[in-house]
Amino acid sequence: MAPQRPGPQLTDGILSTDFYQLTMAQLYFRAGLADRPARFEHFFRSYPDYGRHQAGYCVAAGLAPFVRWMNSVRPTGADLDALAEHRSTSGGPLFGDDFLGWFADLDFSALTVDAVPEGRVVHPNTPITVVEGPLAAAQLLESPLLNRLNFPTLIATKASRVTEAALGRPVLEFGMRRAAERGADAATRAALVGGANSTSNTAAGYAAGIDPSGTHAHSMIQAYLALGEGERAAFQAYSDVYPDDCLLLVDTVDTLNSGVPNAIAVFEQLRRRGHRPVGIRLDSGDLAYLAIQAARQLDEAGFEDTTIVLSSRLDELTMWQITHQIQEEASQEGLRASAVIDRLVFGVGSRLTTSDGSPSLDGVYKLVALQRDGAWQPAIKRSDTPEKVLNPGKKRLWRVTDRRGMATADVLSTVDETLEPGRDVELHHHSRPDVGRVLSATDWEQAEELTVRVVDGGRIVSDGGQEALDDLDEIGARRVADVAALGPGVRRLVNPHTYHVSITDAVWKLKQSLLADLE
Amino acid sequence: MAPQRPGPQLTDGILSTDFYQLTMAQLYFRAGLADRPARFEHFFRSYPDYGRHQAGYCVAAGLAPFVRWMNSVRPTGADLDALAEHRSTSGGPLFGDDFLGWFADLDFSALTVDAVPEGRVVHPNTPITVVEGPLAAAQLLESPLLNRLNFPTLIATKASRVTEAALGRPVLEFGMRRAAERGADAATRAALVGGANSTSNTAAGYAAGIDPSGTHAHSMIQAYLALGEGERAAFQAYSDVYPDDCLLLVDTVDTLNSGVPNAIAVFEQLRRRGHRPVGIRLDSGDLAYLAIQAARQLDEAGFEDTTIVLSSRLDELTMWQITHQIQEEASQEGLRASAVIDRLVFGVGSRLTTSDGSPSLDGVYKLVALQRDGAWQPAIKRSDTPEKVLNPGKKRLWRVTDRRGMATADVLSTVDETLEPGRDVELHHHSRPDVGRVLSATDWEQAEELTVRVVDGGRIVSDGGQEALDDLDEIGARRVADVAALGPGVRRLVNPHTYHVSITDAVWKLKQSLLADLE
Repeated sequence: MAPQRPGPQLTDGILSTDFYQLTMAQLYFRAGLADRPARFEHFFRSYPDYGRHQAGYCVAAGLAPFVRWMNSVRPTGADLDALAEHRSTSGGPLFGDDFLGWFADLDFSALTVDAVPEGRVVHPNTPITVVEGPLAAAQLLESPLLNRLNFPTLIATKASRVTEAALGRPVLEFGMRRAAERGADAATRAALVGGANSTSNTAAGYAAGIDPSGTHAHSMIQAYLALGEGERAAFQAYSDVYPDDCLLLVDTVDTLNSGVPNAIAVFEQLRRRGHRPVGIRLDSGDLAYLAIQAARQLDEAGFEDTTIVLSSRLDELTMWQITHQIQEEASQEGLRASAVIDRLVFGVGSRLTTSDGSPSLDGVYKLVALQRDGAWQPAIKRSDTPEKVLNPGKKRLWRVTDRRGMATADVLSTVDETLEPGRDVELHHHSRPDVGRVLSATDWEQAEELTVRVVDGGRIVSDGGQEALDDLDEIGARRVADVAALGPGVRRLVNPHTYHVSITDAVWKLKQSLLADLE
Repeated sequence: MAPQRPGPQLTDGILSTDFYQLTMAQLYFRAGLADRPARFEHFFRSYPDYGRHQAGYCVAAGLAPFVRWMNSVRPTGADLDALAEHRSTSGGPLFGDDFLGWFADLDFSALTVDAVPEGRVVHPNTPITVVEGPLAAAQLLESPLLNRLNFPTLIATKASRVTEAALGRPVLEFGMRRAAERGADAATRAALVGGANSTSNTAAGYAAGIDPSGTHAHSMIQAYLALGEGERAAFQAYSDVYPDDCLLLVDTVDTLNSGVPNAIAVFEQLRRRGHRPVGIRLDSGDLAYLAIQAARQLDEAGFEDTTIVLSSRLDELTMWQITHQIQEEASQEGLRASAVIDRLVFGVGSRLTTSDGSPSLDGVYKLVALQRDGAWQPAIKRSDTPEKVLNPGKKRLWRVTDRRGMATADVLSTVDETLEPGRDVELHHHSRPDVGRVLSATDWEQAEELTVRVVDGGRIVSDGGQEALDDLDEIGARRVADVAALGPGVRRLVNPHTYHVSITDAVWKLKQSLLADLE
């Protein structure tokens, strides 16, 4: 094994890519194809399927950090040295000096990027990111683009589902410790895109403009116990340092017989000193039962306005079950269920930051057109699996809404088509010849084109520049509006109704003719 | 939402931690406990369970990069500014100038780290990393340690299983595009620790001292098709640029009727020119069937020594099924199954780099002892779940082997005990009072202590320093030796035999007495 080369000089740079992008780039360079205009589309093929339950929509995420990387990355001396040292099977260098000279000057400024803005709802088999420009540069962008968009979209989707299950209550992302090492930061940002309100990930929280969240761990209680003091002394110490931010973890010894009574005792002191205690956190046991019992104890002590944070392997289904159980059982304890639920906060960890049950999104980046003699030629890829046959050519992505503003379908057209209201539109399923329908003029009112030009000439050209791309408030507002425009059946956590994704008759005919040519 | 603060200045630094570590640190600082000697142990509670199949062992990974981070990280001005701006609910600063002054001088040089070396087989409920030193610093190390060890251990474990399923044939890690964004690099390194032979992740491969792998994508064939040329022309172009590294992806048009015959035609030209073609890659369809058929065609053309790379959603079970199917069916085509299998190479992607089916390892970091009046006090944590009750106090971890050198049990003792051969040892299950056994003197021959002192005084003190920690060859040799010392039942991919993890009678009695004190 060769001696290790300096990692930090190489990682996160232009060589953060799959190796075959580089071998293909050298081939395009040698074949005189490097500058040939090409168009690639990024899309995913299926919604995440968490085993027991499949998503009905996705939330686009990752664009702003990807664009920042793309517009700033340049080959370094260490990159060029590493490539120059790469040996062919023959023992000679795999990359020639001619190619390395070309590569040394590479940047992505000759490419345009059109993309669906972050936070928007997106669906399978629709181009959510479109890259156009010289073939070699566009090809080299594939792996960094997929690496930086697939995972954030996966996590934003999970976070949106978790947010729906939270019934309007705050969601805190707690998953750094079991996340994918440095991928934790992307997971945190994507969770915020998808609706999480805060995070325990301190650096990523501050970087996103959010004050991170957290109070104390079991170890603090354990330390006081090992010192011969007790849970109460630990709570006391905490409330002395944080009188206005006193949220206590109550399950280290015994939740209902020690933790909650000790917390209440400390809260009473705080109240006498003019402070308002924040609440408690439950991290084990039957969270629904314990939340009800703890709420009753807190109410009886006059702390009706304290928060109850729930954590411990939460995901959207567990949260749904917990709130359902509270709705069923609270009245037996003489409590209004809504009063219990309205004081909950959900701390969601590993199952959010790893998208447990479906830990990858099957996003791909496919060549759909290439110029030949100055004219665009559509590109196709066959497959034995009909769903994997590419929708060829340069396309536009539309969202069709009805009179109420509800989304009824996403439609792929050719770039020459526009969807004009007041007309019937003939649509096809993208892969099944037997499934077609006519969208009657009376059934739709508007068609919005979903992608916008984001990058051109190495710069952000969309309104507001990088700052607008980064703005999590704007991103969040888009997510809220798009999710609200989905039918409740599509939003359902389990077995959702399948949203319509269709192609126009023109795209369908192009696809059939290209497939016939391949025969 | 506050304006965003500069991300790159904050992420990957000392604030890459869960926020509650900081609030606890300030509390320990104010309570005069920051410098109190404490001991934390890092362990995981259960093997990854991939849904249909649970792991029977794990492979430790991530230590070298973690230690590099720990020994070099220091608070920056940006870190201190971010903390100083953090508001309490009351509107005032959450962190006082007193604490920030202490934090500005923080490093981890007062801590010692003992750890099981990377590449070694490890089991649940055993301390694989032990941190000792001042309470506040040791507490602050929790999240970075878990973030940097849990995920690599998870991926190295998956890679070790994939390597076993590869039956000695090479495994290439291809999963960057759907990995957890920047976590892809840790996944690549961990895959190499776990037995993968190479990676498509160019930067991470070079950083690890490995030449990354890859040839070309479907898009290269599509480009030639769109230019009015064909698959054959694309293969020809590839072989012209890479005559000694010619490995061709043959499934873009039609694997057996176009891809393989075109590859053979190009290979024949290469042979005439004195080059040795490398092989083909199959990326869709029934890989076992196609591998047999492609092998037959290649053999008939005299290319018996070419490689067949398989990829497409592979994991250890799929690989097992594919090689089993080849063993069943090859003879029907007049081929020896072993000759087909011995030319295979496995490209494994998302399912490896995300540990599909079990995307997180439940590693925790628990306070087990704290000094009081100069003496160590064991710390305990109760739980309603017996398996989650902590094994308290300062412990040592032993691996007991028999005469044949096979591992028979991992044993936790107190630090005062040694396991001396020639004696019977009374052992207990760590949580079930009804499960005990006596390890008879005749049933074991050696007890090896598994952790070694790695860090002391801010420096690596283990033999060979950082370079030895980084050495993937040494790490790989440890993995191979440790896996070979496991029984075949423990190594089984599905429903493995459960390896024995036990505690000594002294640890058991300490645990019972501490639990009784809590009542």
